[in-house]
Amino acid sequence: MINITFPDGVIRQYENGVTALEIAKSISEGLARKVLAAKVNEQVWDAARPITEDASLKLLTWDDNDGKSTFWHSSAHLMAEAVENMFPGVKFWVGPPVENGFYYDMDLGDRKINEEELEYLEKKMSELAKQNNSYIRKEISKPDAIQYFTEKGDEYKLDLLQGLEDGKITFYTQGNFTDLCRGPHIPNTGLIKALKLTNIAGAYWKGDERNKMLTRIYGISFPNQKELDEYLHMLEEAKKRDHRKLGKELGIFTMDDDVGPGLPLWLPNGTIIIEELEKLAKETEEAAGYKRVVTPHIAKESLYLTSGHLPYYKDDMYPPMELEGVRYYLKAMNCPHHHKIFAAEPKSYKDLPLRLAEYGTCYRYEQSGVLFGLMRVRCLHMNDAHIYCSKEQFFEEFKAVNDMYLKYFAIFGIEKYVMRLSLHDSAKLGQKYVDEPQLWKETEDLVREVLIKTNTPFIEVPDEAAFYGPKIDVQIWSTIGREFTLATNQVDFAQSRRFKLAFTNKDNQPEIPLIIHRAPLGTHERFIGFLLEHYAGKFPVWLSPVQVKILPLSDKFVAYANDVKNKLRQAGIRTEIDERNEKIGKKIREAELSRVPYMLVLGEKEMNEEKLSVRRQGKGDLGQQSIEEFTNIIVEQISERKG
Amino acid sequence: MINITFPDGVIRQYENGVTALEIAKSISEGLARKVLAAKVNEQVWDAARPITEDASLKLLTWDDNDGKSTFWHSSAHLMAEAVENMFPGVKFWVGPPVENGFYYDMDLGDRKINEEELEYLEKKMSELAKQNNSYIRKEISKPDAIQYFTEKGDEYKLDLLQGLEDGKITFYTQGNFTDLCRGPHIPNTGLIKALKLTNIAGAYWKGDERNKMLTRIYGISFPNQKELDEYLHMLEEAKKRDHRKLGKELGIFTMDDDVGPGLPLWLPNGTIIIEELEKLAKETEEAAGYKRVVTPHIAKESLYLTSGHLPYYKDDMYPPMELEGVRYYLKAMNCPHHHKIFAAEPKSYKDLPLRLAEYGTCYRYEQSGVLFGLMRVRCLHMNDAHIYCSKEQFFEEFKAVNDMYLKYFAIFGIEKYVMRLSLHDSAKLGQKYVDEPQLWKETEDLVREVLIKTNTPFIEVPDEAAFYGPKIDVQIWSTIGREFTLATNQVDFAQSRRFKLAFTNKDNQPEIPLIIHRAPLGTHERFIGFLLEHYAGKFPVWLSPVQVKILPLSDKFVAYANDVKNKLRQAGIRTEIDERNEKIGKKIREAELSRVPYMLVLGEKEMNEEKLSVRRQGKGDLGQQSIEEFTNIIVEQISERKG
Repeated sequence: MINITFPDGVIRQYENGVTALEIAKSISEGLARKVLAAKVNEQVWDAARPITEDASLKLLTWDDNDGKSTFWHSSAHLMAEAVENMFPGVKFWVGPPVENGFYYDMDLGDRKINEEELEYLEKKMSELAKQNNSYIRKEISKPDAIQYFTEKGDEYKLDLLQGLEDGKITFYTQGNFTDLCRGPHIPNTGLIKALKLTNIAGAYWKGDERNKMLTRIYGISFPNQKELDEYLHMLEEAKKRDHRKLGKELGIFTMDDDVGPGLPLWLPNGTIIIEELEKLAKETEEAAGYKRVVTPHIAKESLYLTSGHLPYYKDDMYPPMELEGVRYYLKAMNCPHHHKIFAAEPKSYKDLPLRLAEYGTCYRYEQSGVLFGLMRVRCLHMNDAHIYCSKEQFFEEFKAVNDMYLKYFAIFGIEKYVMRLSLHDSAKLGQKYVDEPQLWKETEDLVREVLIKTNTPFIEVPDEAAFYGPKIDVQIWSTIGREFTLATNQVDFAQSRRFKLAFTNKDNQPEIPLIIHRAPLGTHERFIGFLLEHYAGKFPVWLSPVQVKILPLSDKFVAYANDVKNKLRQAGIRTEIDERNEKIGKKIREAELSRVPYMLVLGEKEMNEEKLSVRRQGKGDLGQQSIEEFTNIIVEQISERKG
Repeated sequence: MINITFPDGVIRQYENGVTALEIAKSISEGLARKVLAAKVNEQVWDAARPITEDASLKLLTWDDNDGKSTFWHSSAHLMAEAVENMFPGVKFWVGPPVENGFYYDMDLGDRKINEEELEYLEKKMSELAKQNNSYIRKEISKPDAIQYFTEKGDEYKLDLLQGLEDGKITFYTQGNFTDLCRGPHIPNTGLIKALKLTNIAGAYWKGDERNKMLTRIYGISFPNQKELDEYLHMLEEAKKRDHRKLGKELGIFTMDDDVGPGLPLWLPNGTIIIEELEKLAKETEEAAGYKRVVTPHIAKESLYLTSGHLPYYKDDMYPPMELEGVRYYLKAMNCPHHHKIFAAEPKSYKDLPLRLAEYGTCYRYEQSGVLFGLMRVRCLHMNDAHIYCSKEQFFEEFKAVNDMYLKYFAIFGIEKYVMRLSLHDSAKLGQKYVDEPQLWKETEDLVREVLIKTNTPFIEVPDEAAFYGPKIDVQIWSTIGREFTLATNQVDFAQSRRFKLAFTNKDNQPEIPLIIHRAPLGTHERFIGFLLEHYAGKFPVWLSPVQVKILPLSDKFVAYANDVKNKLRQAGIRTEIDERNEKIGKKIREAELSRVPYMLVLGEKEMNEEKLSVRRQGKGDLGQQSIEEFTNIIVEQISERKG
């Protein structure tokens, strides 16, 4: 018998050689049907692989990232089987899972696959899936493996084999297809209920352009048709909502070759959104007792040697400028500057918690190839702040930060989110993690308590904390179901020491403050990119660059339109008039297209009665209102940030 | 007879050999008494020097910078005379006028001058001044000049003589003192009615530390005692109001060695002032139809090659960062980025005037030696904007900019200011100035017209325009009478061409816009430095980091103090409580020292009657007010930016 420890700490005994799948079945058949793989002693295994010693066990399903990856990797094998069936003699390179789905690189000789063939391949894959073939793992000696692929004539797999150690080589077989693979895989092909091959591309062998160009086929698969349908719909929506397309159409930002890649220029409409977001952040932070600071965008090398960012983070920073024999760096983060402000004057417990906030602009080097619209940039306007507090204050401070996140989620209609709480591994204290066992335990417990008490959805990820403390990665989903990493929240008990930060406590002794790094709205770049997709460019009234567009029916009503405009502007409503000599239908169409939330159609009747005919973008005519009624509604929508 | 042309264009005839002083006398004795020197054919001359050909003439008085410089240079000679009288055998190096006053470098052998001797020197100078000796110019041959100083044994003057061309050497003599000097000088010593020797310092000969250390005596002089008294008072006040001292005391900014010289870190109190100034600018610019943009702090080298800043301006910029084979520069100005935004989308006459505003942060290299608090820095937060307009729109746009300056001067109580209008020289078109004679004339005329029509005090400075258009340097004076350069206003008809900026005019033809560069509030750094001195740290209510300090008489009244604080904060008033267990006298004293404009003393009576005992900083008790009364007064002072 062996002891199996479950995630909740419960230990049960099983026969030696039991599989995760059998254990799942012993719990419930329903559960067993969902098991894709298992984490055995922190390693992802086949669910069907016998366990032969005491072990910790976590069953992995579609809801686990490792479960999904295994599912997609097995789908790549399924695709390879279908390809081999269709194109005998094809040679395979590698077929990994990716963020969304999988691909396989292959050498098809001179053949090119067309759309029709891709559809045929899809059908073939579905057929093979229905055969419900098991993925069978087999350990094999290196000579036998070499013999197998030599006979098959697959020089790519032989190349792979060269780098592998004898005794650690495995083959996986499902149906008629056998692959060199370290696994793991899902139990059987029948679990793959829905799939789609999404793209064909060329890819140089080993990514080296001097090598042969292989064919790469991308696909995605799901455990049911509904999820595939939703995914395809999401893709279609995402295309319509592409933030680069909307950003251009709505005058949000532009890029310029002479300025440089990854360095957006914010146009007037984008700047209005930036300023509204900053206003929200400043109001919120002011009410939460933050103090604002402003720091330069550069600093001497010595600052980043003190902080420890140099030399470790150097590759992510812009290269230095050398002046008067001193190297200056563009800041890639605001923390060191804020620490210097903390240190500028002696602090006592009465000064704590000290919360220093700055919409600091940081510069980070990202390779040209990965830059992407506003999502991956080199210039980052961060909603940054650092909270310096005592251990006793930590719980309240961290809770307040968490509450701020939840407040923002409500304002922006972000309904799906999860906090990934990354914890330390006590075995690695002093190496991967600062050697402060007590502080790790205390802060991790307090952070967890905050998340539980506030009903915040979270998952725990062991051994992924920052060097200097536990961290929370905040994942959010847009209305069309795409996932974004919004921000990172970090607890820090190392930087205070590096910068010799201290305060005098109540016992008149020097004490080292804890630091919370937080940026709930992330960066303007990423957040506005997210909002463009999330709202499909139809921003709520308070964020809309133009809030009201007045559409006079003809020249005759332009004077009245100006009256109305002045009144609305006096109430702080961003208003424009379309004075062009165009048909009202065209004016409405264009205002709709530019996503202005409210349109006011003004003609004879409206002018004589001092009324407005109000239209809401996407919703049509709302009927007549007086200027005062309308103003009150809009002012309320703006001040409440609703509507 | 010769023709003399006066500044107003009038031409009069005079005897050949007439002097400026004689011409002045022929106009009025009063005027003649004020003449210090004269500009003859654009060169500054002795007022007593005969004019022997047709010439343009401008009489120079104390009100002209050239008049002042001549006065101070003559005062340096007067000081030298007194020194020689007191220390026979002294040798002199050079004695120029400086921004405020003059100095003379001299070799006193092993002697050191003490305070008493300095006072004696002052008295001696006054005595000599009263002798009313003329400054007499004498042309002398180089051999004779060498002989004179060889006999005198003054190797310093002999060194100077080496570099001079025979035939262009002059001596000046007043009383018993003769100096090698190209002049000019004032007519006689009697004009120097008041003087003060302000400082003694060491100065290496020729500024080279391997040379002998000479003695440098600084002084200042005036045409009357009143001006000297005012100047000395101003110096004393300036010392008390030193922005570096106040900046530290009031928590406005700090500097840090690890961040770098000239790179201020703005502390919470300073950041409040920054944000209030930005709020004012944004409101004002919004009302004036500006649109805001946000641009990165760096750009590729190619942007600055297009703009022409490279290579000419290179020494004033931070050195480049080289990334992926491309040089990036920190921006030293915002214009090129704004031009790129103008160019991002096609423009028509309907889009003009386009006014793009940004509180852009620029970085400029200033030598370590000249850095000075907030006044000379390397990081500049600029109240920047660029106005793109047609020629027809130029007058209105320039006038609106000028009006904005005047509005700001009124808000900040800046009563003395002058616009220095720098014009081109038509002889240098195509070399020093863009070859657009018509545009130069038109824009210079329009700018002048704006200044005249708006009653803005201004002076014209020929041949000092920018390469690309006329410019206005805005000089302001703080309440204690110190002069500051606030900002520069420029008209630009060259950058549009370099960036190929154009708009489609009403005739459907491409047309090149004019550009106005403007930054009425200058940079945060310099303007806040100025305001610290101007207000002696006693900011008006709207700018005060803390607007109200509540001083409860004892613990018993802290709850009531919190009530009051919450009410005030809800009304947007920055309020703090001094909860310390200290005597009320001490609390008041410290609140006074920290320049909080209002203090509220709360005790039994105030609590029972729900009243406040109000004190104004520097003015004492204002009596009792209800919370509502007080709130209304403060809210009005804030929203009106008065009080």
